[in-house]
Amino acid sequence: MVPTEINGNPAIPFQGVGKYIPEGNRYAPKTASSANFPLDGNKQVASLKKALQLAGLKDGLTISTHHHFRDGDLLANMVFDIVKELGVKNIRWFPSAAFPCHTHLLKYLEDGTISHIEGSMNGPLGRYCSEGKMGKMAVLRSHGGRYQAIQDGEVKIDIAVIGAATADSFGNANGVNGHSVSGGLGFALADSEYAAKVIVVTDNMVPFPCIPWQIQGNHVDYTVVVDKVGIPEKIVSGTTAITKSPDRLLIAELTAKFCELTGIIREGFSFQAGAGGTALSIGIYFAEIMRRKGIKARFARGGSNKYLVEMLEEGLIEYILDGQTFDLDGVRSLRDNPHHVSSSPFTSYNYHGKGNFAGMVDVVILGATEVDVNFNANVVTHSDGYLLHGIGGWQNCLFSKTVILPIPLFRDRFPVIMDEVTTLCGPGELIDVIVTERGIAINPLRKDLIEKVKGSGLPIKTIQDLKDEAERICGKPEKPRLGEKIVAAIKWVDGTVIDVVREVLID
Amino acid sequence: MVPTEINGNPAIPFQGVGKYIPEGNRYAPKTASSANFPLDGNKQVASLKKALQLAGLKDGLTISTHHHFRDGDLLANMVFDIVKELGVKNIRWFPSAAFPCHTHLLKYLEDGTISHIEGSMNGPLGRYCSEGKMGKMAVLRSHGGRYQAIQDGEVKIDIAVIGAATADSFGNANGVNGHSVSGGLGFALADSEYAAKVIVVTDNMVPFPCIPWQIQGNHVDYTVVVDKVGIPEKIVSGTTAITKSPDRLLIAELTAKFCELTGIIREGFSFQAGAGGTALSIGIYFAEIMRRKGIKARFARGGSNKYLVEMLEEGLIEYILDGQTFDLDGVRSLRDNPHHVSSSPFTSYNYHGKGNFAGMVDVVILGATEVDVNFNANVVTHSDGYLLHGIGGWQNCLFSKTVILPIPLFRDRFPVIMDEVTTLCGPGELIDVIVTERGIAINPLRKDLIEKVKGSGLPIKTIQDLKDEAERICGKPEKPRLGEKIVAAIKWVDGTVIDVVREVLID
Repeated sequence: MVPTEINGNPAIPFQGVGKYIPEGNRYAPKTASSANFPLDGNKQVASLKKALQLAGLKDGLTISTHHHFRDGDLLANMVFDIVKELGVKNIRWFPSAAFPCHTHLLKYLEDGTISHIEGSMNGPLGRYCSEGKMGKMAVLRSHGGRYQAIQDGEVKIDIAVIGAATADSFGNANGVNGHSVSGGLGFALADSEYAAKVIVVTDNMVPFPCIPWQIQGNHVDYTVVVDKVGIPEKIVSGTTAITKSPDRLLIAELTAKFCELTGIIREGFSFQAGAGGTALSIGIYFAEIMRRKGIKARFARGGSNKYLVEMLEEGLIEYILDGQTFDLDGVRSLRDNPHHVSSSPFTSYNYHGKGNFAGMVDVVILGATEVDVNFNANVVTHSDGYLLHGIGGWQNCLFSKTVILPIPLFRDRFPVIMDEVTTLCGPGELIDVIVTERGIAINPLRKDLIEKVKGSGLPIKTIQDLKDEAERICGKPEKPRLGEKIVAAIKWVDGTVIDVVREVLID
Repeated sequence: MVPTEINGNPAIPFQGVGKYIPEGNRYAPKTASSANFPLDGNKQVASLKKALQLAGLKDGLTISTHHHFRDGDLLANMVFDIVKELGVKNIRWFPSAAFPCHTHLLKYLEDGTISHIEGSMNGPLGRYCSEGKMGKMAVLRSHGGRYQAIQDGEVKIDIAVIGAATADSFGNANGVNGHSVSGGLGFALADSEYAAKVIVVTDNMVPFPCIPWQIQGNHVDYTVVVDKVGIPEKIVSGTTAITKSPDRLLIAELTAKFCELTGIIREGFSFQAGAGGTALSIGIYFAEIMRRKGIKARFARGGSNKYLVEMLEEGLIEYILDGQTFDLDGVRSLRDNPHHVSSSPFTSYNYHGKGNFAGMVDVVILGATEVDVNFNANVVTHSDGYLLHGIGGWQNCLFSKTVILPIPLFRDRFPVIMDEVTTLCGPGELIDVIVTERGIAINPLRKDLIEKVKGSGLPIKTIQDLKDEAERICGKPEKPRLGEKIVAAIKWVDGTVIDVVREVLID
């Protein structure tokens, strides 16, 4: 039940995990010539406005920005203030993610400056979209799916605007030096490689060479200095403290125990966890187990934060492969520690490459808003139908060797396990274990794990049991009141459409 | 007088510096899918032979290899021994450069295993080609031109074989860790990005992740372990000691003095020099001037060697941007010093990018086999017509702000300055200064430099004067005896054909 057309372009419905094999070639941008660029390498222009004009800003283009500053991003708002000032309309905004700070842009959605958003929307923009107010259909992609869409030419970016803490006038740039640090700039990699025009914006211009050059100036058309490119303190993601909720602590402890007893935590293993309070607590439990057993992890995938950095510095982890830097300890470590290495959606997640890192991670611990009895999961909508979260790397991480969702059995008296999820984001065959405060359900496909927990004393239940238990407490949840209008398409990692989000009907 | 067709493919004649602007798009390789690669990331196969077979080895393909090990390369010979063993014929060999160690491959040129070479040929292979014995026309490109040719789809590589000191089974690889170190692997970057099939070969396979991952496993199809991938001690290039020839020392001293008196050596300047005895001596003189004046260079471009590394460690240079590692001190520094950074033909030299680093270098010091009275220079053939050298980064470096050729006025009683070079590799408009043991000639286009040396006491002469002086001593040189057959095309940095090499007639 997904559309075969999105905003006038053909779309391919989901065909099953690993079933859709692309036939074509990667997208090939126009060949550039150094003859058209300043011989001395200085591409700096007077202002962001000037750069956008030189880049050919006009109605109907696609402009991309990035969320390295997360809720501290200043650039996307600056860009669209200029677009508005110049009277340009109907821009497709293609951010790697949008945050509450971008609520500023609601008025540009309303007045037609921005036609629609293709990218994860957190908060008010998601609410606006959910209520069917956006001009065109939104498209949500995973981090890897965004790389894939750009690489495959599914989304052609006209102008990419990349904010960087430090740059040189040639366009080499990084996010780890200077005052407006945001950590790795991996989300802008695809844009730098494939966009027709690339603008690098910084508040710390240094003489060539800007080292490290995570963004390579050879891809860049214009460079610009602004007063302030972003607010580093706001890159902090989610909870920065360990959860104090007894239920969440129990879930964290059960998850860690599960990983210990099944032998997932073993010498040289690898893991990835999110940045919420429960995930942080799981990390603490992991560290305790590793210390007790004298175990060292070969690598951890970040989102990096101070807890992961402490594990690296203590020697519990050999490498952090960091896709996104979640706090200033992460930035410092990424800058100074050669064992803390930037990764990108290309290396970590792109499904249309010759493999990626996701499948090499032993265990990944993810969230979900809903899970159904077939282990299918939702990560973008709430049970009231509102689209309030992005996919992030979530879909990509499902290819990890073991996927565990530690989730509370209910939230605000809504059961989290149900007959059918509001929005399908991840197929159940890729989700192995659900850990709740009232028991652990293992996907029947994972006979090996079921075998390993026998006699372990862990509270193993069927997912049906967990669902029944939740419904006994909360009652059977009501379905949200949805209209027919499709407000957003959810892409799978291979560019096919796995589900859609429909308009929420408001009284 | 250049062909419009090379081996059956159309070729564009040179149109002047910066005149030819490409119209098309970059080459787009086939889209891959992770569904076709092992989910656990392990791409290791049993042998190089197996990898070549899986990669679809058959008659008429193009196979690329790289010269990071220089005369210590073992891999290209291994590859073609297998090609021969399997009875496959007519392979286009596309090395980033060939060395005397590849004399082993002469027999495969003779028996048709290899149809021809597109790549710089040093020594016996160049002699073979010069005498018209190669089946098809050779094509010589600069390092940047090789990247450009691959990027633009002018050369489509079927199988790239990349030798690396360390790799993981996914294909991440570097040349700085392990026993068979060769330094940076930048010459293999284009191949990894654009070849249909990519094989990484190592003698030090480590668990994922191989850090640093200069070659990214996401581009790699197969990985292979061999006993020994190359001989690190043989990466040493040219002379490793300062020249003892009084003439060469004088040239070196004059060059350094010229750079001092014209203000080229100033706080924050940048330079690139080669690795021969004269170049090394110039580096020593530069260091002395910088110490005396308290000057620090912002960066030096490598070829890195122990002299450059010493300058970095002494604090005379802030960064080394290293395209090629010329000795084991270079490897150590590249591995351990964050101010010693790998560059690639893409960042440094590719003319069909949005600029490159070459134009940002204040002064570059290069060699030449011949220079004419219009400052046109030759770097590939000797005055006897033999093609014995590759272009390397030479053409690309001509875009530096000041290009100096310190050359002896004659070699083996052949004048080096003449009416017309045997092979045109670099247009005179890009060459600024010729320094010989009998005087310095400044290109009349560089009025600024001519102004600056007035009253300096430097022995400034016209290039015509220098030519006359050489001919007074050696006599007018005889033209080489050349046939009509074109044995090699010389490409300019933009892919156009700037000149050809004709067969040497032997008695």
